[in-house]
Amino acid sequence: MTDGPDDDQRLVVALDVGGTGMKCALVRPDGSTAHAERHPTDAGRGPDAVVATVLAVAGGLADRARAAGATPVACGVAVPGVVDEAAGVAVWSANVGFRDVPLRDLVATRLGLPAVLGHDVRVGGIAEARLGAGRDARHVLFVAIGTGIAAAHVVAGSAAVGAHGAAGEIGHILVRPDGPRCGCGRTGCLEALASASAVARRYAALADGPRPGAAGTGPGAAPADTAPARSAVSAADVAGRAAAGEELAGRVWRESVEALADGLATGQALYDVDTMVIGGGLARAGEQLLGPLRAALHERMTFHREPRLVAAALGDEAGCLGAALLALDSLERR
Amino acid sequence: MTDGPDDDQRLVVALDVGGTGMKCALVRPDGSTAHAERHPTDAGRGPDAVVATVLAVAGGLADRARAAGATPVACGVAVPGVVDEAAGVAVWSANVGFRDVPLRDLVATRLGLPAVLGHDVRVGGIAEARLGAGRDARHVLFVAIGTGIAAAHVVAGSAAVGAHGAAGEIGHILVRPDGPRCGCGRTGCLEALASASAVARRYAALADGPRPGAAGTGPGAAPADTAPARSAVSAADVAGRAAAGEELAGRVWRESVEALADGLATGQALYDVDTMVIGGGLARAGEQLLGPLRAALHERMTFHREPRLVAAALGDEAGCLGAALLALDSLERR
Repeated sequence: MTDGPDDDQRLVVALDVGGTGMKCALVRPDGSTAHAERHPTDAGRGPDAVVATVLAVAGGLADRARAAGATPVACGVAVPGVVDEAAGVAVWSANVGFRDVPLRDLVATRLGLPAVLGHDVRVGGIAEARLGAGRDARHVLFVAIGTGIAAAHVVAGSAAVGAHGAAGEIGHILVRPDGPRCGCGRTGCLEALASASAVARRYAALADGPRPGAAGTGPGAAPADTAPARSAVSAADVAGRAAAGEELAGRVWRESVEALADGLATGQALYDVDTMVIGGGLARAGEQLLGPLRAALHERMTFHREPRLVAAALGDEAGCLGAALLALDSLERR
Repeated sequence: MTDGPDDDQRLVVALDVGGTGMKCALVRPDGSTAHAERHPTDAGRGPDAVVATVLAVAGGLADRARAAGATPVACGVAVPGVVDEAAGVAVWSANVGFRDVPLRDLVATRLGLPAVLGHDVRVGGIAEARLGAGRDARHVLFVAIGTGIAAAHVVAGSAAVGAHGAAGEIGHILVRPDGPRCGCGRTGCLEALASASAVARRYAALADGPRPGAAGTGPGAAPADTAPARSAVSAADVAGRAAAGEELAGRVWRESVEALADGLATGQALYDVDTMVIGGGLARAGEQLLGPLRAALHERMTFHREPRLVAAALGDEAGCLGAALLALDSLERR
């Protein structure tokens, strides 16, 4: 918190509640962070305990703002999974343990402030599109590649939500009809081929020989295949080994880049954006991912206009900042 | 044209310029048609002659409105291919012969009226979403299946245009990586597997043995493979033969339905709509297409919410009505 006087003493309380941790902040109306803190989610305690922590942390942030002479004006909360933004309900967030939790109203009641609930990837996309790597573009597709793969289509700073809060599920589009089974139940979904978990699993399978079990996850779900990999190698390890010239790692990396390029080409055919922002854990590989991905996407562009492909700029703070932006937007609409 | 007095004497001049013919109308502000006429496009005459016909027909409709005591207030023109709606330019309409034609300004100057230029499928989607089969839904995907396949994503009555006027190209998403070559240059596009042309071509190929040549089309392009089919059978014939129990026709029909269902499932994952409206020539097969397509789409819905799948209601007048609606929208924004 800054100690000096502020032209605008308004602050937004923002929380991004993930399966492992919560990123929390007080955010100024210009999108800059006045204060940030992190807390474990500890989802194993059950949804009631997680909700209690969310309310306590949000309340603490509002108190902190007041103690510094600022005015908390709204609260934004982001959660993964299926989110009904209009109703403010966390419909299904498997890795947080939420099922039909009316989180928006619980927060609003506790804080006595207007509150909004958003989807973690969609608000992350809003933040990247307005403040991050897409800030010069009007049509942005933010693609988060981690345990799962999901996207946010952001036009003029607003993310498409869809009819049931489920737009942007690019992880569950078909890219390989004869590909591995996905945690969602279908075969050949992008997520089953190119998520960080899929890369690690594919490498382990090829290194150790075939092993049974489904690949990939449903939206916001924990990986379906929880048996320990015989080769406990992460996607980052695969990227490192590929960069070091290991043949098997190079093959796995190339296959995942090809699948990703197919998925992004489908996204471009349907959305037609200026800029694609690649985020999530796998994007930490930087140009080792983006370089070949850009080339593979370029090959697939025929009549389409080719989008700019860039790495996310806000790291894991995008969701928290986006929750704050969504809260500020809701104030403007009042 | 009605002879009696009208509460609202305003009329919009609307033209849908296709490769074969132009559907033209005077449309009331409530979306009803006061007068309709059709003219051949005769694209073989070249783009200048087609533009001259468009201007003459539009001028004639405006005169007709005035002669009937009404006031023409705007003109909407729809064309296929790549359309820059913001600039009012027909960037590329292969089957009409347009290349960078500033059609909006040409029409506006000739008529002395505000004019708009729209994409035929996008304005068709607007019309189906507001006046047709999607009129009770807020999130609609209109999919036109004819020589090619294209879609319009319509939310709250407005169609997504994209960053370069190319959104909704669902015909060019990957569904079969090892599938036939598409006219766009890629392999396994939905359009190369499930357009009316693809159904006819596939049947001919299986009936007569393999024949060389690319399948499918680029957006707004004429079929790439113009050699006469050895079995000159249309998609409607294939549908008829399949309904009559012919095994080969049944197989071709089922394969195209499976590919379509994969494409629609990808569309649902990315757009999350309430209602999918299926139009274009292939949709004339009615429940013979929609019945199995609905079942195949249902099988593919895992975590997604299943959209309602319905036949288009406005037939080949959708583009003309949509052009009128786009023109009315532009007046409201002035």
